[in-house]
Amino acid sequence: MVALEAGIDWQQVASDMASVVGDRYVVRRREELLVYECDGLTSYRQRPELVVLPRTTEEVAAVVKVCDRHRVPFVARGSGTGLSGGALPIENCVLIVTSRMNQILEMDLDNQRVTVQPGVINNWVTQAVSGSGFFYAPDPSSQIICSIGGNVAENSGGVHCLKYGVTTNHVLGLKLVLPDGSVMDVGSKLPEMPGYDLTGLFVGSEGTLGIATEITLRIVKAPEAIHVLLADFTNVEAAGQTVSDVIGSGIVPAGMEIMDNFSINAVENVVATNCYPRDAASILLIELDGLEAEVAANSQRVEAICRKNGARNVQTAIAPEERLTLWKGRKAAFAAVGKISPDYYVQDGVIPRTTLPYVLREIEALSEKHGYRVANVFHAGDGNLHPLILYDNSIPGELEKVEELGGDILKLCVQVGGSISGEHGIGADKRCYMPAMFSVTDMETMKWVRQVFDPHGIANPDKIFPTPRTCGEAARAQAHEQFPNADRF
Amino acid sequence: MVALEAGIDWQQVASDMASVVGDRYVVRRREELLVYECDGLTSYRQRPELVVLPRTTEEVAAVVKVCDRHRVPFVARGSGTGLSGGALPIENCVLIVTSRMNQILEMDLDNQRVTVQPGVINNWVTQAVSGSGFFYAPDPSSQIICSIGGNVAENSGGVHCLKYGVTTNHVLGLKLVLPDGSVMDVGSKLPEMPGYDLTGLFVGSEGTLGIATEITLRIVKAPEAIHVLLADFTNVEAAGQTVSDVIGSGIVPAGMEIMDNFSINAVENVVATNCYPRDAASILLIELDGLEAEVAANSQRVEAICRKNGARNVQTAIAPEERLTLWKGRKAAFAAVGKISPDYYVQDGVIPRTTLPYVLREIEALSEKHGYRVANVFHAGDGNLHPLILYDNSIPGELEKVEELGGDILKLCVQVGGSISGEHGIGADKRCYMPAMFSVTDMETMKWVRQVFDPHGIANPDKIFPTPRTCGEAARAQAHEQFPNADRF
Repeated sequence: MVALEAGIDWQQVASDMASVVGDRYVVRRREELLVYECDGLTSYRQRPELVVLPRTTEEVAAVVKVCDRHRVPFVARGSGTGLSGGALPIENCVLIVTSRMNQILEMDLDNQRVTVQPGVINNWVTQAVSGSGFFYAPDPSSQIICSIGGNVAENSGGVHCLKYGVTTNHVLGLKLVLPDGSVMDVGSKLPEMPGYDLTGLFVGSEGTLGIATEITLRIVKAPEAIHVLLADFTNVEAAGQTVSDVIGSGIVPAGMEIMDNFSINAVENVVATNCYPRDAASILLIELDGLEAEVAANSQRVEAICRKNGARNVQTAIAPEERLTLWKGRKAAFAAVGKISPDYYVQDGVIPRTTLPYVLREIEALSEKHGYRVANVFHAGDGNLHPLILYDNSIPGELEKVEELGGDILKLCVQVGGSISGEHGIGADKRCYMPAMFSVTDMETMKWVRQVFDPHGIANPDKIFPTPRTCGEAARAQAHEQFPNADRF
Repeated sequence: MVALEAGIDWQQVASDMASVVGDRYVVRRREELLVYECDGLTSYRQRPELVVLPRTTEEVAAVVKVCDRHRVPFVARGSGTGLSGGALPIENCVLIVTSRMNQILEMDLDNQRVTVQPGVINNWVTQAVSGSGFFYAPDPSSQIICSIGGNVAENSGGVHCLKYGVTTNHVLGLKLVLPDGSVMDVGSKLPEMPGYDLTGLFVGSEGTLGIATEITLRIVKAPEAIHVLLADFTNVEAAGQTVSDVIGSGIVPAGMEIMDNFSINAVENVVATNCYPRDAASILLIELDGLEAEVAANSQRVEAICRKNGARNVQTAIAPEERLTLWKGRKAAFAAVGKISPDYYVQDGVIPRTTLPYVLREIEALSEKHGYRVANVFHAGDGNLHPLILYDNSIPGELEKVEELGGDILKLCVQVGGSISGEHGIGADKRCYMPAMFSVTDMETMKWVRQVFDPHGIANPDKIFPTPRTCGEAARAQAHEQFPNADRF
């Protein structure tokens, strides 16, 4: 994308950066750069040339202008929790870290909106408004550490997105620093605006169109009542069928999560909720929220649907501490799997909800074929799967084999009419799979749109789109071949 | 935008078009072209050079290729009910009418989605799925005649968009014919997709990026119960305050509409609901939907909020025919006003909900200052105003004066942090006001994005963006001047 100039005067770049943010906030020492080598996708690593930590929109604009002037690529990074390598540095890049941009700039509770800097942690937004009876709905598992800027870049989801929608449904407006260092406002503080929806275009663009330096979020009234139901089943398909039946009944739960037997036992070994029956094939966690009367009525209906589908037991938690206990295992699931396996690889795919039972059987078959254990933990209501593939990265060649299994799972998702990413983004990890979902015209159009914002290709290059350098022409052709029936619908 | 070639060989264009769609579906006779001179914005008229009525994506692509080859601009038109002149022809253009593209192509009820051609009427979608317990949520007042293609172009709203969101929240994927005649798919049949959100970009782009020829819509489960409440007040501010209080309580009604005294009497004169008290300063219609228990509980809470704000009476309708009676007047409001005044001009602006009482007082003052009666009928829950300015178009110079009052109302909307359009779009009508909301950078960026799709500027030129020809440099400067405090937030 960007022509990597061998002749970049990094001394000059660093000095220009220091004149913007101060010496203290320019990092160049190799040992200090180590922590910035990767994000949550730890299997890819690349040291940035230098790291800059600006504090304001003006500083970000000035920093980006330095990059533009020297034609050096930049990568924006929030908390670095992303799972697709969206904040992975590239060779000879400037990493712009937003951790000092951590101010809540404005709260307008009457109109249900809050404006924040990108380094604000997801959970802080809810903390800031919960006393007034509001919350910020998108809640990735990493919500106590991930940043709003990263959420915007990756269009993050979470447990509650089934009812409330993903990040793009909660971003009203953005102040952007474009890749030439100019500043632009898109959207507003109103839900709908005339003109082209550039806000929607930016959300999920993974840092390739610029950097959001002010983000106006929609906040939601906190529900009066919440019930959490935990149903356990002797087979996984029954849990999948229950999910379809609940949605089919017209109830929209706040969240609906499935965990399989392996995950249940991993969790009980590590955090011991003592609520998840170790002999269940799967458990289904359903959160219902709303008014007391509504939740009470829905709770009974959902319980009946669970029992009709063969649930052995249905526990209902109403008190906050009881609800937390039921959720505790789900929230700790990734960490728990991490404790019982040296390494794990998280896949992220989407399937039409109705294909859930079939897909779960097929993943089991793929797991056996490839010889790796796959733990299934997922946002079942959205059809958003998160298979965790267990392996040992210290054994040479294992990662490649695991990635192959991960690719087979994505292939399965696309075959049933699904998607190669639900909420983690494409980043560096999945760009070679893009041809499976998008035609050449689709991708070329996206790249042309990118050119509008970033004519020199210096904003997070080599992400999202496959290139011969990253995927190889052979790899591209192969991706096409791997998905021979990949019709986008 | 497009260089209008004096030397276009229209005979050749017509013959090329006939070879695509057949002679019968190419209209060139002046008297037949009359009906295509305007859309719902009847104060602007322009005869197209010829009209083409294709039936399939392939035919639309071939028709657009003819336009591209001859470099003649084209304008797409659905039912022609739009109120901002989005489907207004320009001089020397081809009007592509989608009325023959009226097929529902696919219904996938299990995954809650329906794929339609653009000429399908909004209401048909709900009719097709209601037997299975679903509905299509966006419901413009014109829903029994407006087309889904037009809804997509203008990102249409409606009474139920308060709870369910506008058109963009219900479009999953699109098949597009781009302005060079190539065909492209954007989005998919899943709610979320990786890559740039080109679907969101296209919805609301008012025909300037191409023509949607297949539209995949999300349908919603029909609610178990619906209550409609009608509260009447002795002052308009109390109705506005009730709206804020209902939303503030955490209840999200399906719709919340205010009508003022003038509209109430217009409606009672014409359709005689006998439910709207003629002496009320305003009435508030609130529709609540959901489960029985939820609706019953919310209904009581909303009634209490109405009474706390001084409502004289609160009627509640539960049976379908009673609900229809309460809605009848609101649905007929525009037509009723049309019956008591020779002409009316509908304005469409948005304000933050909390400014409602202030804005209503100011509109009253503007009405007196300009000497025109203004009837207020609006989507109060969204802060989406529809002031109807009554006038007589047969009196020379009246329209200009009325447009000035309309402009003052928009100015007021922007001053309180609102928008120049809620759901009718910019079209031909409001392009000169765009500088009031958007900076030069904003508009230039949008135009660059447009260039990606339409490098020759032949797709619905002169819409959305102000040009010296349409607004005049003076008009542009004036628009800037008229809104000196117009900060986008």
